[in-house]
Amino acid sequence: MTSPIGQNIPRADGRDKVTGAGLYAGDLKLPGMLYGKVLRSPFAHAKIKRIDSRKAEGMPGVFAVLTRENLNVAEKLYGPYVKDQPVVALDKVRYAGDIVAAVAAVDERAAIAALAEFEVEYEELPVMATFEDALREGAPLVHEILEGRKSPDFGTGASHIVHENSNVCFHFRYERGDAEAGFAAADHVFEDTFDFPSAQHYPMEPHTSVAKFDGDMLTVWSATQSPFPQRQELARVFGLPLGRVRVIVPYVGGGYGAKSGIKTEAIAAALSRMARRPVRIAYASEETFRTMCQPRASITIKTGVNNDGTFVARQCKLYLNGGAYSNSGPSVTEKAGYRAHGPYPIPNVRTDAYTVYTNTVPAGAFRGFGAPQAAYAYDSHLEMIARRLNIDANALRLKNLLRRGDEYAAGDTPIDCDLHGALKRVASEVDRVNAKFSDSHIMHGRAVAAAVKDGGGTNKAAHALVKILLDGSVVYSTGSVEIGQGLRTAFLQMVANELTVPLDSVQAAELDTQYTPFDKGTNASSATTVMGLAMQQAARDARAQIIAAAAGLFGVSADEVSLNDGKLAGGGRTMPVREVMRRHFGAAEGEIVGRGYFKVPKNSAVPLGYPSPFWEIGFGAAEIEIDTETGTAKLANYISLTDAGKMINPQQCRGQDEGAAVFGIGQTFFEDLVYENGELMNGSLIDYRLPRFSDVPANFKTIILEEGGGRGPYGAKGMGEGGILAVAPAVCNAVENAIGVRMQQVPLTPERIWRAMKERGSKK
Amino acid sequence: MTSPIGQNIPRADGRDKVTGAGLYAGDLKLPGMLYGKVLRSPFAHAKIKRIDSRKAEGMPGVFAVLTRENLNVAEKLYGPYVKDQPVVALDKVRYAGDIVAAVAAVDERAAIAALAEFEVEYEELPVMATFEDALREGAPLVHEILEGRKSPDFGTGASHIVHENSNVCFHFRYERGDAEAGFAAADHVFEDTFDFPSAQHYPMEPHTSVAKFDGDMLTVWSATQSPFPQRQELARVFGLPLGRVRVIVPYVGGGYGAKSGIKTEAIAAALSRMARRPVRIAYASEETFRTMCQPRASITIKTGVNNDGTFVARQCKLYLNGGAYSNSGPSVTEKAGYRAHGPYPIPNVRTDAYTVYTNTVPAGAFRGFGAPQAAYAYDSHLEMIARRLNIDANALRLKNLLRRGDEYAAGDTPIDCDLHGALKRVASEVDRVNAKFSDSHIMHGRAVAAAVKDGGGTNKAAHALVKILLDGSVVYSTGSVEIGQGLRTAFLQMVANELTVPLDSVQAAELDTQYTPFDKGTNASSATTVMGLAMQQAARDARAQIIAAAAGLFGVSADEVSLNDGKLAGGGRTMPVREVMRRHFGAAEGEIVGRGYFKVPKNSAVPLGYPSPFWEIGFGAAEIEIDTETGTAKLANYISLTDAGKMINPQQCRGQDEGAAVFGIGQTFFEDLVYENGELMNGSLIDYRLPRFSDVPANFKTIILEEGGGRGPYGAKGMGEGGILAVAPAVCNAVENAIGVRMQQVPLTPERIWRAMKERGSKK
Repeated sequence: MTSPIGQNIPRADGRDKVTGAGLYAGDLKLPGMLYGKVLRSPFAHAKIKRIDSRKAEGMPGVFAVLTRENLNVAEKLYGPYVKDQPVVALDKVRYAGDIVAAVAAVDERAAIAALAEFEVEYEELPVMATFEDALREGAPLVHEILEGRKSPDFGTGASHIVHENSNVCFHFRYERGDAEAGFAAADHVFEDTFDFPSAQHYPMEPHTSVAKFDGDMLTVWSATQSPFPQRQELARVFGLPLGRVRVIVPYVGGGYGAKSGIKTEAIAAALSRMARRPVRIAYASEETFRTMCQPRASITIKTGVNNDGTFVARQCKLYLNGGAYSNSGPSVTEKAGYRAHGPYPIPNVRTDAYTVYTNTVPAGAFRGFGAPQAAYAYDSHLEMIARRLNIDANALRLKNLLRRGDEYAAGDTPIDCDLHGALKRVASEVDRVNAKFSDSHIMHGRAVAAAVKDGGGTNKAAHALVKILLDGSVVYSTGSVEIGQGLRTAFLQMVANELTVPLDSVQAAELDTQYTPFDKGTNASSATTVMGLAMQQAARDARAQIIAAAAGLFGVSADEVSLNDGKLAGGGRTMPVREVMRRHFGAAEGEIVGRGYFKVPKNSAVPLGYPSPFWEIGFGAAEIEIDTETGTAKLANYISLTDAGKMINPQQCRGQDEGAAVFGIGQTFFEDLVYENGELMNGSLIDYRLPRFSDVPANFKTIILEEGGGRGPYGAKGMGEGGILAVAPAVCNAVENAIGVRMQQVPLTPERIWRAMKERGSKK
Repeated sequence: MTSPIGQNIPRADGRDKVTGAGLYAGDLKLPGMLYGKVLRSPFAHAKIKRIDSRKAEGMPGVFAVLTRENLNVAEKLYGPYVKDQPVVALDKVRYAGDIVAAVAAVDERAAIAALAEFEVEYEELPVMATFEDALREGAPLVHEILEGRKSPDFGTGASHIVHENSNVCFHFRYERGDAEAGFAAADHVFEDTFDFPSAQHYPMEPHTSVAKFDGDMLTVWSATQSPFPQRQELARVFGLPLGRVRVIVPYVGGGYGAKSGIKTEAIAAALSRMARRPVRIAYASEETFRTMCQPRASITIKTGVNNDGTFVARQCKLYLNGGAYSNSGPSVTEKAGYRAHGPYPIPNVRTDAYTVYTNTVPAGAFRGFGAPQAAYAYDSHLEMIARRLNIDANALRLKNLLRRGDEYAAGDTPIDCDLHGALKRVASEVDRVNAKFSDSHIMHGRAVAAAVKDGGGTNKAAHALVKILLDGSVVYSTGSVEIGQGLRTAFLQMVANELTVPLDSVQAAELDTQYTPFDKGTNASSATTVMGLAMQQAARDARAQIIAAAAGLFGVSADEVSLNDGKLAGGGRTMPVREVMRRHFGAAEGEIVGRGYFKVPKNSAVPLGYPSPFWEIGFGAAEIEIDTETGTAKLANYISLTDAGKMINPQQCRGQDEGAAVFGIGQTFFEDLVYENGELMNGSLIDYRLPRFSDVPANFKTIILEEGGGRGPYGAKGMGEGGILAVAPAVCNAVENAIGVRMQQVPLTPERIWRAMKERGSKK
């Protein structure tokens, strides 16, 4: 049998999805199911003086009305790090869109009609929309009381500083060497600040769940990418043991970080407990805009450089606008902080990264998890240093980039691919681009960028299960969620490969926390490596068991039995898996259960407490055309380069890298959540500009290296976020190359470029 | 903590069931679900010449019509032993009620209306309702062609004889010693024949399922007691790998053997595949009557006895009326055959047991699985021998009964309790009864009976799973079905006991073949012992893992750690399970998965190929009042005695034994499926007499011994069938004691007793 590893196997979920047969949480209809809708605050910051829900309760078709007055939970606040978000608003609202009440009714129309009947009396409070507002002396607090601030389990060099009576939600510090001494000793010191926008994930499927309370058993069908953490949080909120909360995950229509944590689930469950009926909540896309976003970031990097270009000291300050509730924000800040000094062996580093509460939409996990913000800053800053020192930027990169085998930080996993080779490769691609000369007011520019992020994120352990059934068919079970990234197909390939059985005899089990082996969640490109290793081990465990069974039947020792093409051979006999199963179990019948577990070992010598499972790289080469009359920037060519270690499914890998680059293009050119007086002004698809197919550059290429250095099965690494990292810095570097203007803020709206050109012109 | 073992813990499923909150398969409503109904044959035996379904297809609301013309399956015939039953009739119908066609429509009314529109042309064939009819020379065959007759995997002394071109479906032979030589050498030889009725299981919930085909994935919610064998059979019928068939078992409203194998599921699935919608089929109780029953039996026992009462040779012939389709009938016949010579160490035995096809309702597994028929015969026969030899019947029993530690058959598990003590105990109970003297035409009689059956049946292996979740709550998973027998509570007690955690922190997972560990089915009182051992092992595996985790935290070796009251102690420290979980897994989080597997080892030295997991005993003492004017028999007092080894939950054990005795009372006094010209005359609750509360004797007592000899957890054995065994023989023995008439056929209708008295009077 040809190994399915490295083959472009069609997606296992493809047919279901394109034919519409695949069921999503929103497709679920349960007998007696009610439809829930939430009432949102029109104010960005206000005390709630009074809520009168009597009229709403009396509306036809209304079964349950949930407000702070009747909130039937054990714990009113939730959040993966800081428990700061109420199921419904308690004392005040903290952003325009904050949830004040909820209604469950026979249909959506009745629920929406009831929303109009609430009487809520607010007392407006000062609004802080930016981190500067929120950190201003004497600024009011977004959260007066904060309980359960979690002190992360950091290792050497990293720490968590708690700010009392402050809008600083979380402060991560990383230090090595002595930055101040480094600056003092350096030939030059440069400092630059960069601003990166807040973006909306915009998964095709908005936040949706159906919750059903049967006595003290809660079942939730949720479009989530983190079912087990969600189960844990729901159990805490509703005061139930984990065994009495069951999270079932049907197909999920995209996540990108948005589908982590509790979204609609707690409200649906609270309404269900009250109404004693199943309750479905499906947000409109406008509501998804007002639920969670990428944190806006302002990053200042100060670097001490020697005359030869060597970086000797660096100080980074990152302010991430965390919005009104923290959710995964602290974790994003920690990662952004760890990544901010960039992939260079700088001896003296000090980084401070802050999550700051403001009166805007809560921010948290987003594809890239703080790395795009950091990469934009450090690669742009490198290019600016090169210009100031009059060194070729790529030479400066090569001077400073980590080499394969180097440690990013002491004790962390060594860099697992050749960054220098990757840089040369991507730079050679941009050289080869034949720029088209056009009108004189169109200026061309080319440049590259190079970034790295630790992959695997907060996913430190995974369990998997592979069963061989009596007829030789195989079922695997994983807590990692197929959110469109293709893991169902990749695991199918791995399992089929390990057991040498046909792909169509392997089946994924539905994800249900009551049965599926524990997993921390689906994030940080971790599935292929972290869950992949658990899955491979589970398949190998099953393989060892079927080999032992065959050895018993053949009367030979297990090491004399081989498994190839779904057939066991040994002692001169050959028998298909199915036959071995039948004979081994006999009249008792049975099944083989293979289990796999992979854990990243804790290591307090490493700053984040755990070594990175692998390194994800994002290198890019951009060619840009600027219309100097309008400031319009057009990405004419883009080459994205990453390393997959080994591609399990090349077509899916390419799709992931292309998708990531398009995310980068969106944030570099258009995407930005715009507030005015604390109100989100463009929270709908009419106003918010997502990338379109016409935004894909005419020359758009993805280079995926297979350097084999991944820790995952067959040398694979995670990928799917790297493609974002280089877009903003490569494009801004190319813009400077084209028009000599340094853009320190994305997205590159025509107005911004035009103003920057004007400003530069006036300076000249 | 007081151990929950031996405590009367309230049923875990009790509240759900009495409040109506518990969901059964029939409660399920899926979006777009259709309602299926079947068309049944009015003839007991007929060729189908033509089926015209065009009118039915055209009826309003009809989505699918299934006949032999469009049967969309890979294999048309199913059956656990012989594949002889078609999903819908092919060439002919074999009993009145056989399924000819099926309809799926928007509601039941539309489906029933469509049934009236079928045109079916039959050609009637001779009807054979009894085994005598079917075995008559030249009788037509019920099944012309029979494929896949399975040759059971018997051990020493047992064999399977195939009869070609015969209505003998299955023939089991068991031999030891030389019966003919034994008879020749014996002082006396006696032969008697006994007839036992065909009964209906009458579970409260009729046969019900919902089937849903999504592409090539079949999900079935089924009221089944054998989900894994059902999955296997559905996979075969529909040509799917096992991994693409998922059987989910909600609450089940009683089984008693009826809920094994395929009942409504294949038709529901075929209709669903055709209609591309979920299809629900819920039989009416009249249809359940026409689906499966207990096999009617005629048993002849011939015994060679020495003057001192010692049994020296025995020949048994058992004819079981298997009805039109075999389903589990061959297995019942095998067990009835193995049990027929009774619990006596007779050196020379020869038994022939036959399943005979007839044109009646298919017969198969039924609480007792052939043992009540056998026990009625051998204990009645013993009492008749005692009278003939003028020996006290109990003395004759004590002379011949096996002793604790004796082998029932060479190599089988030794008898695991004291049968002699049990007999004395039950006999003393009947002596203590103070008979009320009443009218002179009321005659009193007292007697006992003693029977034994090998427990655990065809359940030769079990897998179980016990998870400890991060908060210390526990979930266990088992493929054994809670069919009302209380296993959910018993396993809860076992798991809580092994982990020393509170009962309310333990939760059973829903049974779903895609996740639940494999199990052969729920039958033969096997769950407490066979699954119980797997469950105990799984809990102990989990226990060992939490102890190891605590040892790691305490810095001591595992054998220095103890677990009591849900707290781990060692090295001077004490920590609750929850805390050990949290600290052991740390930021990676996780769960402990304990696995258990128990297998009865194959042993070809034993007649049935596998030793019996345990011995179930059924001893009874009856006091009867006969009205000699009407022949009415009234059971005034009944004492049932069994051995549970160790009662996990005494209240549930008593309920099981009482229920079993009431089954025995039903079959002894009223229950009998009556045919006329091949048509079932009393297939409804109006006509079929089930035991009522008023039939429970005024003095009704259950004695459950705890002799600790069980192989199950804590010395427990299975129980719940033993209580049936002694009723018919004890009652008939008491009848003879009262009026000197020997009844060799049950049920004891007044007419039968009256006629027997008349006959005896005329003989005198």
